[in-house]
Amino acid sequence: MSKFATATKRLLLGRPFRSDRLTHTLLPKRVALPVFASDPMSSVAYAPEEILLVLSVAGASAYVYSPWIGLVVALVMIAVVASYRQNVRAYTSGGGDYEVASVNHGPGWGLVVGSALLVDYVLTVAVSISAAAANIGSAIPFVATHKVQFAVLAILLLAAMNLRGVRESGTAFAIPTYAFVAGILGMIVWGAFRTYGLGDDLRAESAGFELAAEEHHLAGLAFAFLILRAFSSGSAALTGVEAIANGVPAFRKPKGRNAATTLLLMGMLAITMFLGLIFLADTTGAIMAEDPERQLIGAPEGYEQKTLVAQLAGAVFAGFPPATWYVIFFTGLILVLAANTAFNGFPVLGSILAQDRFLPRQLHTRGDRLAFSNGILFLSGLAVLLVIVFEAEVTKLIQLYIVGVFVSFVLSQSAMIRHWNRKLADETDAAQRRRMRRSQAINTFGLVMTASVLVVVLVTKFLAGAWISIVAMAGIYAVMRGIRKHYDRVADELKEEEGEQVTLPARNHAIVLISQLHRPTLRALAYAKATRPDVLEAVTVNVDDLETRKLVDEWNRRKFSVPLKVVESPYREITRPVLDYVKRVRGDNPRNVVTVFIPEYVVGRWWEQVLHNQSALRLKTRLLFQSRVMVTSVPWQLESSKRASTRADRAQPRSVVGDVRRGFADGQHPDGGRPARDRQETGR
Amino acid sequence: MSKFATATKRLLLGRPFRSDRLTHTLLPKRVALPVFASDPMSSVAYAPEEILLVLSVAGASAYVYSPWIGLVVALVMIAVVASYRQNVRAYTSGGGDYEVASVNHGPGWGLVVGSALLVDYVLTVAVSISAAAANIGSAIPFVATHKVQFAVLAILLLAAMNLRGVRESGTAFAIPTYAFVAGILGMIVWGAFRTYGLGDDLRAESAGFELAAEEHHLAGLAFAFLILRAFSSGSAALTGVEAIANGVPAFRKPKGRNAATTLLLMGMLAITMFLGLIFLADTTGAIMAEDPERQLIGAPEGYEQKTLVAQLAGAVFAGFPPATWYVIFFTGLILVLAANTAFNGFPVLGSILAQDRFLPRQLHTRGDRLAFSNGILFLSGLAVLLVIVFEAEVTKLIQLYIVGVFVSFVLSQSAMIRHWNRKLADETDAAQRRRMRRSQAINTFGLVMTASVLVVVLVTKFLAGAWISIVAMAGIYAVMRGIRKHYDRVADELKEEEGEQVTLPARNHAIVLISQLHRPTLRALAYAKATRPDVLEAVTVNVDDLETRKLVDEWNRRKFSVPLKVVESPYREITRPVLDYVKRVRGDNPRNVVTVFIPEYVVGRWWEQVLHNQSALRLKTRLLFQSRVMVTSVPWQLESSKRASTRADRAQPRSVVGDVRRGFADGQHPDGGRPARDRQETGR
Repeated sequence: MSKFATATKRLLLGRPFRSDRLTHTLLPKRVALPVFASDPMSSVAYAPEEILLVLSVAGASAYVYSPWIGLVVALVMIAVVASYRQNVRAYTSGGGDYEVASVNHGPGWGLVVGSALLVDYVLTVAVSISAAAANIGSAIPFVATHKVQFAVLAILLLAAMNLRGVRESGTAFAIPTYAFVAGILGMIVWGAFRTYGLGDDLRAESAGFELAAEEHHLAGLAFAFLILRAFSSGSAALTGVEAIANGVPAFRKPKGRNAATTLLLMGMLAITMFLGLIFLADTTGAIMAEDPERQLIGAPEGYEQKTLVAQLAGAVFAGFPPATWYVIFFTGLILVLAANTAFNGFPVLGSILAQDRFLPRQLHTRGDRLAFSNGILFLSGLAVLLVIVFEAEVTKLIQLYIVGVFVSFVLSQSAMIRHWNRKLADETDAAQRRRMRRSQAINTFGLVMTASVLVVVLVTKFLAGAWISIVAMAGIYAVMRGIRKHYDRVADELKEEEGEQVTLPARNHAIVLISQLHRPTLRALAYAKATRPDVLEAVTVNVDDLETRKLVDEWNRRKFSVPLKVVESPYREITRPVLDYVKRVRGDNPRNVVTVFIPEYVVGRWWEQVLHNQSALRLKTRLLFQSRVMVTSVPWQLESSKRASTRADRAQPRSVVGDVRRGFADGQHPDGGRPARDRQETGR
Repeated sequence: MSKFATATKRLLLGRPFRSDRLTHTLLPKRVALPVFASDPMSSVAYAPEEILLVLSVAGASAYVYSPWIGLVVALVMIAVVASYRQNVRAYTSGGGDYEVASVNHGPGWGLVVGSALLVDYVLTVAVSISAAAANIGSAIPFVATHKVQFAVLAILLLAAMNLRGVRESGTAFAIPTYAFVAGILGMIVWGAFRTYGLGDDLRAESAGFELAAEEHHLAGLAFAFLILRAFSSGSAALTGVEAIANGVPAFRKPKGRNAATTLLLMGMLAITMFLGLIFLADTTGAIMAEDPERQLIGAPEGYEQKTLVAQLAGAVFAGFPPATWYVIFFTGLILVLAANTAFNGFPVLGSILAQDRFLPRQLHTRGDRLAFSNGILFLSGLAVLLVIVFEAEVTKLIQLYIVGVFVSFVLSQSAMIRHWNRKLADETDAAQRRRMRRSQAINTFGLVMTASVLVVVLVTKFLAGAWISIVAMAGIYAVMRGIRKHYDRVADELKEEEGEQVTLPARNHAIVLISQLHRPTLRALAYAKATRPDVLEAVTVNVDDLETRKLVDEWNRRKFSVPLKVVESPYREITRPVLDYVKRVRGDNPRNVVTVFIPEYVVGRWWEQVLHNQSALRLKTRLLFQSRVMVTSVPWQLESSKRASTRADRAQPRSVVGDVRRGFADGQHPDGGRPARDRQETGR
């Protein structure tokens, strides 16, 4: 797919730039929308269904409430979208909720948001893929019967792709996203037209069934509780909205406004699709049972309950299967894209957290594939675990999902209110103040909405699984705090004390380690001399009396101006005798340093690595533990290494996930040969 | 067990020495015997049985030949022992057959022996453990029914022990070995006394059974072939004799003579036990069927065929089970010890091969636990594989076993003949010459014997499995040749050309990498200055504009005498920009060098490693690939590192397997604090 994407891209955008002047290609709205909206819009694929599933507990009669629940969810979504339009205008750096919360509530709360979002990403993958499996399963029975395996496989596939460094490409997103939107909207419109225009009676395949209530005639309170549960499941439709806030830097100028517009567009589309699906479900009389085996009466033998989208498509496009397949296929595809979004958002968030030293530094500096890979493995590993534990059941996973999202909603909205207060404090212009007040009002509205949803979610979902997410958030929070504490402690330790003067070393005792007399050692000797140490001596470890004797004779014959010391090693080990020797010559004078020169051959092939430098490597690591000991590697490149290094140079640095979101262009990297431009700053 | 051993040792020898003057404690014969003889003597536990098993194919009638076969095997053993008495006298360095063959036949043949012995070690483990399982299984039915699992577990256990670095201890060997010898001899004597003294009629439990011949009335040639097969299986009794030749250095002076005496003692014991067992088998009428289910007629329902030793013990000590258990237990135990012997001999041989650069160097220098561990894993891995493939059936494994041993027998004996020829060439003293001639005659006799056995083995066992060992030997041979070729090629590449002059670098351009201004960087700067480079500049990579700006301002404020260069990194990577920069400043003048100073913090805990120096490490490795670039690590030890390094210092270097065989004493190591003594060699 990445291959295909690149190909298409080549066609659309021509060969990738080679300049490293221009470091960003910014996304036009029409591309930004699919890139950022695939996640939030994909959630409409399962949110309506979840509402019906919860209601089904009370029997089909409860379905009458679904439109009302849908409307409330839509209302909340409007509030959230409106609020985030304020966020993206105010914070364009891409820090998203994390930044907003950190700035206005302090880093502690920011970190809470961070943890919430990390958990959220894991669940996005698990839920989206499970939903994809369910939808595809509605078209291909085999997938339905092997849902878990399919989901796990899909996650591993995504992980592999992202490990290889597949770069997100606008096109790769645009096509399926727009196709999905077109499909769903088309279905709704056509469905509406058939019903009211042609007066057809649309019947979902499950329409005829009797739905046995799990709990009969629920008492008032219990029933209200059920409604609330249905509502909080429905609010899954809002997940992913927050993602766009992290993507602002990728937008064209004026970033804030463009992002806001995109958000609005996305919100409108999402709401329309969401309500449209609920409307269709209502008109087609689709029945979704939480437990088909036991609840569905009158269903044919071995009836496999399809997803709502699949059933609706089947009903609306009855007699024209291709259309049905189209809808199902692109629904599945956009859900996979949504999962991939998490793979791209995760490292972005990671690098932001790393910048504030809540995560390992190397997550911040790019090109550390290892760090990114670990992130991807972490993400996919947890997702796979969830999928297996919850049998790829969206309904079960949803319980864990929503809480994280709403925690960050609430915190960022409340933070925005403070933000406006600060602004208002030192803003005099009346017009400005009015505008700010309006924004603040909107955020307040958003806060009220999201806060009440959060409460509902906590109340209705806590035991059902939300607690797991909360525990996970707490755990991640603690780890990140710990990392930060460590970095801070190190920073203090490294800070200069008042008036501390770093003095030049008084005496530099140089030691050249010698095993045999060959070019690397001779080079090391020559180089060591060039550094003009106060003392210079060659040291060899007597591992083999015969060889040592030969070496010493040769040494004396050659009349080197440098003395050769032989360190005994009765047990034929190298590290320890050298360490002991260095410790001795180093002495106790804090102003003396010892420099150990280690001649090394550089080899190119992995198996050559096995045959060389093993002891040098171990020695180096152990030497660094001694204070006032410098270790200098004097490399000698063997032929094979040349090949390896050219290979490494030629290799285009592979792309890193999350680039597009950060506005890094496709295929744009300073290629090996090109000099990066430098600035010269001189203090005299 | 090691704990127990140490405890006993403490009791017997007092606390371990702490001196590093005395590097060897040599083994008195009474300790050397068990250490080296457990392997050869253990093989008498299965050799006689194997003879009967092969003969059983032709029915019990064929058993009449077993004594004669036994005698021939004994004869060969005498020849081999006599020959090796010459070897150990002539070669006391511990090189064993490998050395003898290399010196007299050239390194090529030496390598053949080396490969043969490596394969041999693997099989020693597989066979001994399988035999141990069979014997213990004869006492504990559960083990019999789970033979393979038991064997695999035992091997893994041994591997783990040796990985942890359990040091062989004389005592740990002495007790079970002598107990085993006592048990077997006691059984034989008591058995003989009961038969001839008391006139009892000893009956093995299997005595009554009818043995159905697998192949009836074998024709003359086929029958002869069967006898030969029985014979070559019986010669398994000789395996392990060669081991002692590698142990000569561990003997007290006169090493050669003492080793020879020990060999003689071992030979006599082994032969006595071997023949004694065959005699007992004969008198008790024990029946060993290759395929009990089909061959044994008249056996009770679900009869489990016990090992010969177990049956004999049962017969001889009928009515007094403890004695039977004693014999069975110590038979099993010595077989396990024999397997452990391989774990100790393997690295010794490895280090000898490494010395000649047929294996990675680090196997030669000790204390490279990694290398040794890999050896142990390799050994145990292959052994486990064999045990599983051949279902822990001694009879099947034997087929692979003997060929390797006899290859080295033959090569070393033929080598010895050449050895004597050389000696004779420049020996005039008549008495000496006579002695040499005698030795040569003995070796010739040994050669004739072992050569004919080898032929027999090849003929009778090739298809039965010997081919596998031969293929393995060839493979190992090829790999070792390859390694040697590589080392040679590197050596040439590193040799100085005629009259090549290594000149001092003309110009040393020093670069100090700086991320922030703290003590490590300041120290690095100060140290870099002290090396008086021609150019000195500080370089920072602009990963984060804000931080860089701060750094630059601070730099200018501090008025350092060193210019600070900012290298742009549009993609927030570190390695590539630095590499490019270094490449540029290095220029093309072959006499210019660049020195890169990298400030590093040294941390103590593994998880701190994750949080630091990742990029520094990657950078260092990549820098070394550029010619004329020196990399100097300027370490800064954080608090946590102190703890770690003291931990490392305090840690007594753990023992290395195979020490005892090389005559390294128990618990004797130069301890961290103690200075190793040095010799000073000065070429003016």
